Amino acid sequence: MLKHFSPILSPDLLYALRQMGHGDEIAIVDANFPAYSQGPRVVRLDGVDATRTLDAVLSVMPLDDFTPEACWRMQVVGAPDEDMPIFSEFRSIIARREGPQFTLGSLERYAFYARTAKCFAVVATTERRLYGNIILKMGVVKAP
Amino acid sequence: MLKHFSPILSPDLLYALRQMGHGDEIAIVDANFPAYSQGPRVVRLDGVDATRTLDAVLSVMPLDDFTPEACWRMQVVGAPDEDMPIFSEFRSIIARREGPQFTLGSLERYAFYARTAKCFAVVATTERRLYGNIILKMGVVKAP
Repeated sequence: MLKHFSPILSPDLLYALRQMGHGDEIAIVDANFPAYSQGPRVVRLDGVDATRTLDAVLSVMPLDDFTPEACWRMQVVGAPDEDMPIFSEFRSIIARREGPQFTLGSLERYAFYARTAKCFAVVATTERRLYGNIILKMGVVKAP
Repeated sequence: MLKHFSPILSPDLLYALRQMGHGDEIAIVDANFPAYSQGPRVVRLDGVDATRTLDAVLSVMPLDDFTPEACWRMQVVGAPDEDMPIFSEFRSIIARREGPQFTLGSLERYAFYARTAKCFAVVATTERRLYGNIILKMGVVKAP
């Protein structure tokens, strides 16, 4: 184990995150999501939910402040404005880790799939809450 | 890039470190060291010296406090008690990162090679100072 790290940042997840650069995106998806059929590399986190994964990923990954939006949830099918409880949890983790300036965007279900297909990696959690999916765009780490 | 990390913790180096467990060992070796002929996986850090590498590795890796020694340098050939300037630098980095209780052990040249052959990975730096080699044994991260 490593110091100063969440233990759910597995070797494979840390490897993928460290390979990413500015503008690359990573999806964190729930237990129902068709992760393997989208195309990108899949990193598994069996037994871990999406909110805990989001918190661990944002403990090391900066969000992109070069673009108007840097994170997106999936819209509820047939009710695009409906707010599920997990969306509030996503928002509070993002605010705590990266600051209140990042708003959580949303994508219609198939647009979310299309964006996942272009992601650098997909983290397949076993989140059981529906719509427990989020895409994150990597920002930059400024020189000290 | 990731937050809170030395940028010389490359994807491959971070991957190896995160795969290691209690008692596994990693060697950081200089530009003259026969890294590839020892057997273990080699992670390259071209352009980086051994002391900077040691500092970055110990920023995330705990040393083992279950054993009398957890780090070893190579002895000067023909002068096993000679202290090279880089040994003092190794000692001060170890003390700063992991505390003064860790003493830097030493191994005769061929014993150092034999121990490297059993390491989990070898980090091949381009350290130009002779005897810029060190082996580290991973400790544990205690529950918070």
